[in-house]
Amino acid sequence: MKLLRVGPAGQEKPAILDAGGGMRDLSGRVPDFAGPGVSLEALEAIRALDPATLPLIAPGARIGPCLAAVPNFHAIGLNYARHAAETGSKPPAEPILFTKASSCLSGPFDPVVIPKGSEKTDWEVELGVVIGRAAENVSEADALAHVAGYCVVNDVSERAFQLERGGQWIKGKSAPTFGPIGPWLVSADEVPDPQALALSLDLNGERVQDSDTSDMIFSVRQIISYMSRFMRLLPGDLIATGTPAGVGMGMKPPRFLRPGDVMELRVEGLGQQRQQAVAAP
Amino acid sequence: MKLLRVGPAGQEKPAILDAGGGMRDLSGRVPDFAGPGVSLEALEAIRALDPATLPLIAPGARIGPCLAAVPNFHAIGLNYARHAAETGSKPPAEPILFTKASSCLSGPFDPVVIPKGSEKTDWEVELGVVIGRAAENVSEADALAHVAGYCVVNDVSERAFQLERGGQWIKGKSAPTFGPIGPWLVSADEVPDPQALALSLDLNGERVQDSDTSDMIFSVRQIISYMSRFMRLLPGDLIATGTPAGVGMGMKPPRFLRPGDVMELRVEGLGQQRQQAVAAP
Repeated sequence: MKLLRVGPAGQEKPAILDAGGGMRDLSGRVPDFAGPGVSLEALEAIRALDPATLPLIAPGARIGPCLAAVPNFHAIGLNYARHAAETGSKPPAEPILFTKASSCLSGPFDPVVIPKGSEKTDWEVELGVVIGRAAENVSEADALAHVAGYCVVNDVSERAFQLERGGQWIKGKSAPTFGPIGPWLVSADEVPDPQALALSLDLNGERVQDSDTSDMIFSVRQIISYMSRFMRLLPGDLIATGTPAGVGMGMKPPRFLRPGDVMELRVEGLGQQRQQAVAAP
Repeated sequence: MKLLRVGPAGQEKPAILDAGGGMRDLSGRVPDFAGPGVSLEALEAIRALDPATLPLIAPGARIGPCLAAVPNFHAIGLNYARHAAETGSKPPAEPILFTKASSCLSGPFDPVVIPKGSEKTDWEVELGVVIGRAAENVSEADALAHVAGYCVVNDVSERAFQLERGGQWIKGKSAPTFGPIGPWLVSADEVPDPQALALSLDLNGERVQDSDTSDMIFSVRQIISYMSRFMRLLPGDLIATGTPAGVGMGMKPPRFLRPGDVMELRVEGLGQQRQQAVAAP
């Protein structure tokens, strides 16, 4: 299933793609896609519906973030070896966890707003994992049974805020629009191997990130199992699993987003995003 | 107003203390206390009710966490000078932000579960601030107008997970039961000056933390204004504002929680908590 949310910002309705790629309105039939609304049980209830019987949404409607809200927006740092090297870091011995404020969620085609005072806003294409069943002390073997599905994430990052303002990374990861997700939440059954997905990001038509999830240092299974030793993962939690090489911070000289720049992101099987950077109002 | 949530874990009902200290059932009258349910508008709607007309809840019922869920559980590190010193850190030049997983929320009298593999579980009494109106780029002068209320927080922390497992602090801040909050969400009008509150923590009857929020390095106004430059704060967001000196990590030799240890926490005007540490099942 390819689930999405369609409508003006703040008024999106849950929807599903039908066999022909049409958007079908799920509102009134299921809760919005957040928390328990994307539990494995909730997805089973959606699966029992026949999309062809649901109201068709006119093409061209805005696609919002594929999750209405997240209990936690987790992210993994430096999870591709060449990306760790380009940031001047050693590959980590254990997964690095950090957080994006949940208020940064944004639609996959919405503008990315460069915050006031920012000079180092950067891009990061990532595979996003959405939890579908609470996970606490789960083994790597069982980890994928806790996944509801996957989505494209742009882990937009302000490097000065992240690295030069003291302490933890959240300051540079959390501005409004810094979390474009979607277009689709693709149910896990359509992604038989999350470690075999090409992913890329084009900046103004030039490919700057081009990799494959097989290059992750810690796999999705390992990440979920590891995290579940430190916390209870909840249905609807989103985990951005790290970005491959090719971010602006790693270029020589470094290159950061300017108003008008266009990012196009793609993860194999999960659809495409396109955002234009704009100045803060 | 003193708002609370009463009932078995996972089935709590929103409630309010009446003039005599009785617990009055708000369920069915207002949404549960989470996100928009604690917006300034939602609190005004509660204020318009006469508690004496609401059903009385029998005394002795379990008091749960005063928030059912949080969009974000933020926390400030090293925000009291003597605490920074006891951890071997310099006072920070800017507020240090970190995150606790939202799934760590726990009732003020529930046991604190020492996680599997933990040897360094520690206590931290803190003033918690609950946001009532979205805040983005707000001034220090305007910051307190965005506060719904205040509560006691025990920012339970596993020091090895926090400091010895690579990178960010979230790993040591997030285990289930690591976020006792309450007993009450006290509305902001009852706390005219959040920088004039005594706070303390007793371990097995011995006072180990004993300070005042006037000793914070960064005030509540400064914290909210500062954070709002990096992210949009949302109604229902919880910010734990840092702990004073007297944590186990700072003792010579260090002392950490063992099963059976009892913590009693108090913040002036916000009520008391009491938790017993227990081993993971």
